[in-house]
Amino acid sequence: MLDRTHSDAIQQRIDQKTKPLGALGQLESLAYQLALIQSQDKPDAVDQIHLANPTVLVFAGDHGIADEGVSIAPSAVTQQMVLNFLAGGAAINCFCRANQVAIKVVDAGILLPVEEDHDNLIRQRLGTRTENFSKQAAMSLSQVSQGIVKGADLVASTVAAGCHLIMFGEMGIGNSSSAAALLAAVSGYPVEQCVGYGTGISLEQYEKKIDVVSAGVIRCDGLDVQEVLAEVGGFEIVQMVGAFLGAYEQRVPVLVDGFIVTVAAYLATQIEPACRDYMIFGHRSHESGHELVLSLLDAEPLLDLSLRLGEGTGAVLAVPLVKAAAEFYNTMASFAEAGVTVEP
Amino acid sequence: MLDRTHSDAIQQRIDQKTKPLGALGQLESLAYQLALIQSQDKPDAVDQIHLANPTVLVFAGDHGIADEGVSIAPSAVTQQMVLNFLAGGAAINCFCRANQVAIKVVDAGILLPVEEDHDNLIRQRLGTRTENFSKQAAMSLSQVSQGIVKGADLVASTVAAGCHLIMFGEMGIGNSSSAAALLAAVSGYPVEQCVGYGTGISLEQYEKKIDVVSAGVIRCDGLDVQEVLAEVGGFEIVQMVGAFLGAYEQRVPVLVDGFIVTVAAYLATQIEPACRDYMIFGHRSHESGHELVLSLLDAEPLLDLSLRLGEGTGAVLAVPLVKAAAEFYNTMASFAEAGVTVEP
Repeated sequence: MLDRTHSDAIQQRIDQKTKPLGALGQLESLAYQLALIQSQDKPDAVDQIHLANPTVLVFAGDHGIADEGVSIAPSAVTQQMVLNFLAGGAAINCFCRANQVAIKVVDAGILLPVEEDHDNLIRQRLGTRTENFSKQAAMSLSQVSQGIVKGADLVASTVAAGCHLIMFGEMGIGNSSSAAALLAAVSGYPVEQCVGYGTGISLEQYEKKIDVVSAGVIRCDGLDVQEVLAEVGGFEIVQMVGAFLGAYEQRVPVLVDGFIVTVAAYLATQIEPACRDYMIFGHRSHESGHELVLSLLDAEPLLDLSLRLGEGTGAVLAVPLVKAAAEFYNTMASFAEAGVTVEP
Repeated sequence: MLDRTHSDAIQQRIDQKTKPLGALGQLESLAYQLALIQSQDKPDAVDQIHLANPTVLVFAGDHGIADEGVSIAPSAVTQQMVLNFLAGGAAINCFCRANQVAIKVVDAGILLPVEEDHDNLIRQRLGTRTENFSKQAAMSLSQVSQGIVKGADLVASTVAAGCHLIMFGEMGIGNSSSAAALLAAVSGYPVEQCVGYGTGISLEQYEKKIDVVSAGVIRCDGLDVQEVLAEVGGFEIVQMVGAFLGAYEQRVPVLVDGFIVTVAAYLATQIEPACRDYMIFGHRSHESGHELVLSLLDAEPLLDLSLRLGEGTGAVLAVPLVKAAAEFYNTMASFAEAGVTVEP
């Protein structure tokens, strides 16, 4: 867990700002968390939060479960959207531009790889796509371990390049089925509470989705997190679990996106509980199941805009709030500095 | 009301973006509203939302009601905080810096005027401070009319200087009492539902606040909005009512802040209902009474961060979400442009 040595100094700095106690609500707890993370081994950091080079890593992977007709689109769309990310045309690109966030797209194993090289494309494929988890294990345990290492290594190199705030996004037709199965298997909650309508399936597809997710979950009884990932996981989800563990190793705050990313965050805390201290939650997704996993993580997201898109959009949209928290912490006047005699 | 000629073209543009229908939630309705406002008399604007030079006008005024001990600080703090705004040390300045928003501070009538000239200071004083509204009318009807004109004129000149998105903030010891009285008098809701704890008064002060607010409200029976403003209003609130009317005249979208600003917005709609079409709501304040006035305006704010500070902070913090809505509307690829064959 985080060292609390500087806890009082940080809280005092916040309380002496020219505002009534607590009047900046959630931004105050956010500034407290950021300062606590960054001052772990550097007492000087108590006076200054650094948020240089915020970066979103968008992990893409394809899923055998898509064969079951549980999505509104075929697997080919994963590649089309990856090309859209690389061309700058997707929602995540718009929000990265608006909020000055760098984007990297990670091919964690999509059905149709992108042939051309691209500055923002990172290839760390675990396979062509996962197996259909309603019938067999999605991947091998060795693919799980490789994926966790690759995710953690990518965070390490991103942080080494100067990134102080990291985010993960995802793209993969079928991945809300995988995330729902992972959540049900690891939390023990009923499948019905974990499965949602994804990007907009019909009631018939929804019932089918519950069936195929249940078929995978039933094999997970008594398994550990890595084994569950092998049974019902996805290549992009496995790498995100590793990325969360990497953020913890690197002591860098992570701004968490919607349902699928939050499930990866939850799995990471089941491997290393101290991961949780580094997580900031960007938004509350419209996807049912997100509420459940947020409550398991005792998380209070910054935004609640009825988004249900993924890609990392809910995290990147929250970046300005994180920057605003840092700005007030770093530059707002204290009562003494401003000559304000009584709390206004 | 807004002309709906371009309504279908705007909705179609949003629905053809590479995302499932409606997946960007509240940002989609926001982009729709912005495009509709800006294309009223310019059909070309259907393809592009413009948000140059976002500006917050912070209106400051002092209140005779402060003599009743209904605040945590004396009236002198209004001037101290105005000096803090001018020096760049307050929360509103931090958020303006973080989000590239210009700030102007308006002396609408504070007890201790600022002597020195300052680039960001605008003097349009309606008096030294209002009278104690628990005992007599806060101001004259002529001060109300002057204030409304001054507020509207300031918006007109700000828009003429190139501002496409405007915000109003406020500072004034005692002004949550005035706002509560205005809300109760105009809406007819009980005083108890309109009065809150402001920046953090005690239970005893809270009960006193209900008494003094009631004493003012009781004189307002059967009065029109301007007459109610004269009875229990504040100089900064009157000018903000004029500013909302000015935004409507200028056809410029306004991003609305917390309780006190929202009460001014509500009064403006009682004078000119079409004002409402130009309002975007920035945040849901922790101050009780805000929920009530938001529901009267049928408003769904963008942020809910338990802020209770005023100054315009809740509006300025929401600026990046407005910019993000414009960015996706302006630059996100359509299915055809991106070569995505099926909705992802």
